[in-house]
Amino acid sequence: MDVSVTVVSVSRPETTASVTRGAARFLTALGYAPLAEVTLPNGRRADLMALGPKGEIFIVEVKSGVEDFRTDQKWHEYLPYCDAFAFAVAPEFPREILPDEPGLIVADGFGGAILREAPVAPLAGARRKALTLAFGRLAAMRAGGAEAFTL
Amino acid sequence: MDVSVTVVSVSRPETTASVTRGAARFLTALGYAPLAEVTLPNGRRADLMALGPKGEIFIVEVKSGVEDFRTDQKWHEYLPYCDAFAFAVAPEFPREILPDEPGLIVADGFGGAILREAPVAPLAGARRKALTLAFGRLAAMRAGGAEAFTL
Repeated sequence: MDVSVTVVSVSRPETTASVTRGAARFLTALGYAPLAEVTLPNGRRADLMALGPKGEIFIVEVKSGVEDFRTDQKWHEYLPYCDAFAFAVAPEFPREILPDEPGLIVADGFGGAILREAPVAPLAGARRKALTLAFGRLAAMRAGGAEAFTL
Repeated sequence: MDVSVTVVSVSRPETTASVTRGAARFLTALGYAPLAEVTLPNGRRADLMALGPKGEIFIVEVKSGVEDFRTDQKWHEYLPYCDAFAFAVAPEFPREILPDEPGLIVADGFGGAILREAPVAPLAGARRKALTLAFGRLAAMRAGGAEAFTL
């Protein structure tokens, strides 16, 4: 008997979209209000930036695959703009290659789970105030239909 | 010669939508990020609530016509939630019936102009902080496609 095997490879943009959606749903379920694709004051783009009920700022960086992670290990550059930082990856991502320090979310298109809590390093008051204001203004512009990305 | 006159009466919801759109564009041109239909903690619904570049909170209440104004003169109830308050009306609105105290914007569907500056009564720090956070979270939920209205 001949066996025919079809290998479906999920392209990186599809994985990114799916993991981003699942991680956003997960954050929403935790009480956060997430915003996708936010360019920070230092020019780095956060895949998800979320505002918690007490003003906590959480940044989640989606890694679609090994190559995506290996070619961009600048995750320290997100830390000055959030209280907590986590990676979000698909279930099949080889998690052992990720650094131990940040939080870790595993997500598919429907939701996610936290595998390692994101350590909290609270922002200074003035920085938090400025980021919260900029986040609110960017979110309102988006809600009004503008294609705005930069905080 | 017979003369045929067609009277086009603009319905209230259409006027409201058009004035709201024009006032929102005007606020955006002034550097504010406006959000439409925001229900305040006291249950009043603000037609537009906008966040300025320095964190100023501006509420604009649209009055579609005389009846709309006469049946709802509770504008004082918006003041505890903003630094400045203004009415926005269509060009044909009889402006003499409006109170003198709040600001006054005249708008059509394309933009607006300020006829009277909104007097500024700055919010207390804690209230401003709480409102800014709630505004940012509501705006992000809207940007993400949620039908969220309450601050």
